[in-house]
Amino acid sequence: MQRYFVEKSSVILPNIYITGDDCHHIKNVMRMNIGDKVYVSDQDNSWIAIIESIDLNQVVLKVEKELDEQKELPLNITIAHGLVSREKKEETIQKITQLGAVSYIPVLMKKSVVKLVKEKEQKQTERLQKIAKEASEQSHRTKLLNVELPITFNELLKLEKNYDICLYASTVLDPKDQSFKKIIKEQKYKNILILVGPEAGIDESEISKLSNWTAITLGPRILRTEVAPLYIMSAISYELELGE
Amino acid sequence: MQRYFVEKSSVILPNIYITGDDCHHIKNVMRMNIGDKVYVSDQDNSWIAIIESIDLNQVVLKVEKELDEQKELPLNITIAHGLVSREKKEETIQKITQLGAVSYIPVLMKKSVVKLVKEKEQKQTERLQKIAKEASEQSHRTKLLNVELPITFNELLKLEKNYDICLYASTVLDPKDQSFKKIIKEQKYKNILILVGPEAGIDESEISKLSNWTAITLGPRILRTEVAPLYIMSAISYELELGE
Repeated sequence: MQRYFVEKSSVILPNIYITGDDCHHIKNVMRMNIGDKVYVSDQDNSWIAIIESIDLNQVVLKVEKELDEQKELPLNITIAHGLVSREKKEETIQKITQLGAVSYIPVLMKKSVVKLVKEKEQKQTERLQKIAKEASEQSHRTKLLNVELPITFNELLKLEKNYDICLYASTVLDPKDQSFKKIIKEQKYKNILILVGPEAGIDESEISKLSNWTAITLGPRILRTEVAPLYIMSAISYELELGE
Repeated sequence: MQRYFVEKSSVILPNIYITGDDCHHIKNVMRMNIGDKVYVSDQDNSWIAIIESIDLNQVVLKVEKELDEQKELPLNITIAHGLVSREKKEETIQKITQLGAVSYIPVLMKKSVVKLVKEKEQKQTERLQKIAKEASEQSHRTKLLNVELPITFNELLKLEKNYDICLYASTVLDPKDQSFKKIIKEQKYKNILILVGPEAGIDESEISKLSNWTAITLGPRILRTEVAPLYIMSAISYELELGE
């Protein structure tokens, strides 16, 4: 069943109103008709709804059934990612959305090879947000991954206080270190920020500023910067979502 | 330090002989000189070695130190992957190599959209093997991931007996199912074959032939065919390689 995300203001139960791109998608891409069913989520609740009418700029749905689905990770994981190329950003966002992350923050770091181009960032972020929306729908999530505008490393440090704990992926830590597993298993911290460096890693001068952060290991092999976030998200899902 | 894989026949201790592409790489890409050090592995042992001489077609190394590294997963994981596009194969191989898989087998399945082109497979497999070799070196592995030629689903079934246990990723299993975690934690089975279907999934008629296989879940969200193998490999590394 086709899945759509809507704003809360579009939900006036028992009706849901779909406009814009999704209206176009229902009418012209999916070529749906009155009576067809779709899945709708406003990120807090989700429903099966029936198409009641199709107008020029609006599709009106009527809710058939509210769903009680558990598709979201029990922890809110934000990935802060050393600035990488547009292609790598797209790929990473596509995949960590499927794996249940709630937010992605590109961070300009000392060893980032890619440069920030201020004028282009707004547009690129909108494009990345669209990729996240599609991936959320395809993976049957009930929430959208949020793509943030790129920030500097110093701006990232100021976000510390918004999270219950901040972690960073270390390439020098003993692979047998227990911090990551302990933090995930305990579920003591609900809102977790995890930093993964760019291709060349986190600079020593940056690591010295991460004194309030906990270093975690992702095992004995060297992972590329686009693989580390997938390892993190897969491991958390495996630990908390699969049966024990 | 630059890393190279060699055949066992190239190791005549205390010397190691490097020819072919790697000889070219040392001389012309890295522009190394006598006295420079490299890392060498024959997949069972690994060494730090010093360049003793550089000839037209051969670089002679002298072993300085044998290494005792644990870079390999304690289980031998083979990913059998429903045939996907060349790009997706390359991406998957690149990543599961970093994550420690030992072998990758493309499988022509009922719902594979991609077709097998017999004449091209040998060449494509050689190219994929090269990608695996580079990824093994970059991720500091001591073993190479082995890329197999594509086989049919019926040929895959005949391979069952070569493994201690065969698993397949199911999209209908309860996400709370315990099989995957149990099998990995126990470490009772050393050689494990894990099948991931193509984009459209494993056909019902194929599932009916997997009666000797164990279904596993990869959580409550729908993962794309190129993400599922990364989830599997990351989860196994997390479970067995990180500290408890």
